[in-house]
Amino acid sequence: MITSALFTDYYELTMAQGFWKKNKNTRSVFDMFFRRQPFNGGFSVFAGIEPLINTIEKFSFSKSDIEYLKTTGIFEDDFLYFLEKFKFSGDIWTMEEGTVVFPNEPLLRIHGNVIECALLEGLILNTINFQSLIATKTARIWLASKKGSIMEFGLRRAQGCDGAMSATRAAYIGGAAGTSNTLAGKEFSIPVMGTIAHSWVMSFPSEEEAFDAYAEIYPENTCFLLDTYDTLESGVKAAIVSGKKLKDRGMNFAVRLDSGDIQYLSTKVREELDKAGFPDAKITVSNELTEEIIESLVNNHTPIDSWGVGTHMVTGGSEASFTGVYKLAARTDDSNGKDLIPAMKFSDNPEKTTNPGIKQVWRLYNADGTFKADILSKDNEKIPLRETIKYFHPSNDWKSFSFAADYAEPLLKMKMQNGKRCMPEKTIKESRRNMEENLDKLDNSYKRILNPHIYKVSLTEKLREEKLNFLRGKRGH
Amino acid sequence: MITSALFTDYYELTMAQGFWKKNKNTRSVFDMFFRRQPFNGGFSVFAGIEPLINTIEKFSFSKSDIEYLKTTGIFEDDFLYFLEKFKFSGDIWTMEEGTVVFPNEPLLRIHGNVIECALLEGLILNTINFQSLIATKTARIWLASKKGSIMEFGLRRAQGCDGAMSATRAAYIGGAAGTSNTLAGKEFSIPVMGTIAHSWVMSFPSEEEAFDAYAEIYPENTCFLLDTYDTLESGVKAAIVSGKKLKDRGMNFAVRLDSGDIQYLSTKVREELDKAGFPDAKITVSNELTEEIIESLVNNHTPIDSWGVGTHMVTGGSEASFTGVYKLAARTDDSNGKDLIPAMKFSDNPEKTTNPGIKQVWRLYNADGTFKADILSKDNEKIPLRETIKYFHPSNDWKSFSFAADYAEPLLKMKMQNGKRCMPEKTIKESRRNMEENLDKLDNSYKRILNPHIYKVSLTEKLREEKLNFLRGKRGH
Repeated sequence: MITSALFTDYYELTMAQGFWKKNKNTRSVFDMFFRRQPFNGGFSVFAGIEPLINTIEKFSFSKSDIEYLKTTGIFEDDFLYFLEKFKFSGDIWTMEEGTVVFPNEPLLRIHGNVIECALLEGLILNTINFQSLIATKTARIWLASKKGSIMEFGLRRAQGCDGAMSATRAAYIGGAAGTSNTLAGKEFSIPVMGTIAHSWVMSFPSEEEAFDAYAEIYPENTCFLLDTYDTLESGVKAAIVSGKKLKDRGMNFAVRLDSGDIQYLSTKVREELDKAGFPDAKITVSNELTEEIIESLVNNHTPIDSWGVGTHMVTGGSEASFTGVYKLAARTDDSNGKDLIPAMKFSDNPEKTTNPGIKQVWRLYNADGTFKADILSKDNEKIPLRETIKYFHPSNDWKSFSFAADYAEPLLKMKMQNGKRCMPEKTIKESRRNMEENLDKLDNSYKRILNPHIYKVSLTEKLREEKLNFLRGKRGH
Repeated sequence: MITSALFTDYYELTMAQGFWKKNKNTRSVFDMFFRRQPFNGGFSVFAGIEPLINTIEKFSFSKSDIEYLKTTGIFEDDFLYFLEKFKFSGDIWTMEEGTVVFPNEPLLRIHGNVIECALLEGLILNTINFQSLIATKTARIWLASKKGSIMEFGLRRAQGCDGAMSATRAAYIGGAAGTSNTLAGKEFSIPVMGTIAHSWVMSFPSEEEAFDAYAEIYPENTCFLLDTYDTLESGVKAAIVSGKKLKDRGMNFAVRLDSGDIQYLSTKVREELDKAGFPDAKITVSNELTEEIIESLVNNHTPIDSWGVGTHMVTGGSEASFTGVYKLAARTDDSNGKDLIPAMKFSDNPEKTTNPGIKQVWRLYNADGTFKADILSKDNEKIPLRETIKYFHPSNDWKSFSFAADYAEPLLKMKMQNGKRCMPEKTIKESRRNMEENLDKLDNSYKRILNPHIYKVSLTEKLREEKLNFLRGKRGH
């Protein structure tokens, strides 16, 4: 865990000194939200908030950090003294880990002085963007396997050591059954799993000797890797010979395929194993698996019992970043130096225009308990229940829908107050259960791997009015 | 830096116990190499070896690591005692950071007992794969900009905290001029850089007031962000008004564009600035830049002075992992328990077949000092100079080329001996210089962003013979 507050973009520090010198370190509110679903998907899984809160509680400048800043020649001593005392003192409202989330809704809302909010931007985005990316990717892989047994094998291809550790944590929340990363197993109490490597097989004069040796040591947990030389010509044959000796001792085994055409080889290996009297020997596959490949194999009824997924799970694969951003939503009114007033960013890209003010996110439910839509409201609004209400598209204002909700759940809850955690830390098991429950309540059409339905995130009439006022007048309130 | 030896795939530990119980913790040699160039490129930049060596020197099991392993119920006390004493005691031969590298050549060769080699696999691949990916991506971006000024702005989109730190280090080696990551600036002595954010502009009643305030505080280092509301309608106009006040004080400024059509807006903004008498005001751009976008902007003579690159640089973007693998190359001969004999993996995917034995990599030079080809030889071979020699394609054996080299440089050098660093640590400045010199010696055809020429990596006749003997007999030596 990096707790040095230097883990921030340099301009946050220069701007911070600017705010400080201009006596503008006043109250502000920032939203963290994302702009589009990764992987052309229909949902994302929110992750990273629990470790983030732990880090924020410790985020500060050490003496040597201050010394370093002094060497830049840019910062005044008084300001450095101010930084030396820095500790986040504000509030954070956020969703629970494992919640399914959608573009343009705040996942996290931070209330604090503008300097503390600015200094935390990088840490917040770095943590939430990465863990949400991986939890989302894993949930897609897990759904593609029809909630099968997915082993996270990504340590060697992950982006650095924390890329491996945080990815393992997020993958577990997203549905992985376990990990090969032993340190993550220890740190996060995640089941550790593994098979055997080609180097084991190559270290013996023959595959049969390699398999026998492994089976002798781990008779209750034996896996034979079949593709070191030739899967069908030698690997499966040796596995059957070694397997018979195990069977004589009343034990079973599994096999692993790591190259070649997985569909063809799994089917052939299954046939060979069945023929030899091993219908219970499980088949594990690996080798650059993605949710698309897994879905295709499952749809083709390929006889596969578990999946080892590495690269694509822990890096995102086709998409290596989550589009989370952090934008000013409200600031102190200069005219009285006291009230919080909404702020909004316009930008030359219309989709980069933000929703102004302090907001709550409401999840509306259908009568059967499934999710209908998410609604952004002004913070002090309530959502009327069992009453038909019109909600508005956030950027295409002429689009709206009407709905009478039976339930409306506010998704943003205060988890830090005055810089301290104010809700107990959820375990990753709880977060994972939350993910499962959320996905169960999300219609299948949003969970399609390819070309999913787009879930509605709309505005209440009051928030829409606020936004339109900004757009009509530009900065004119 | 993670130094816990639990940072390893679980199967390495179960196999380690297997080798240990079978009295097979004998000498072995593993190669780390990669299988194809990322980004459809023509070269990669090797990075990560210096921090890797520092970590390997400390890689060990703490008491609590051993306690954790005990809880799995899989490991015997005697083996755990062995692990408690574990420390890498072998040798590592490797290339210098910043070297341009090509598929199928060993980047690192490790000699040690099979258990220590196995336990290091994950750490070695995790470190080298990620840093080489980012150094390579950055070098591509830097070349696309015609060796322009590239600022690494990726902290918020990087894959976890080390994803940001290691990426910043590797990006600097790959050609980035500086970083926004202040902690990386401190840790690695990399120049820190930044501009201003939309939140600064939004915190003032008008853009002009925001710009004036910033210029007042940082008159020598002012950057105006133009796209908070509307780049051409308001941003550049406010910049010109604020800029005139700066000019009266004898100061200059820069502007930053972060959205919209970069080509169009840069050109228009340049015109406006020139017209207003600011031909020296620099233009910085950002917003999801890739090497392809930068190359197109540069080829179209877009007036841009520097580039802020985040997401794609620090994650790899289109490709989020480097295909580095770690394979057994030689093992102890079981028949005498002493000699090292070549080992080779076949696999059902021909491109996954390895080159057997202990190898050296030679870089052959043309007479003009440019790189001609890389040659894999058996370890005890020399490359004859100024003599026409035939070299063989590593997998398509009928392909060969003949060449009389003026110079042949062995690229693998011993950097660890008996578990200790035996060559002084290179600074990242030296590694970056090595990258620059390497790229200067690589023909432009290999450096094309799109559809580059393929650099030759070939085998000596002796190594080819060794490989063919394996392939003819399969395991039959």
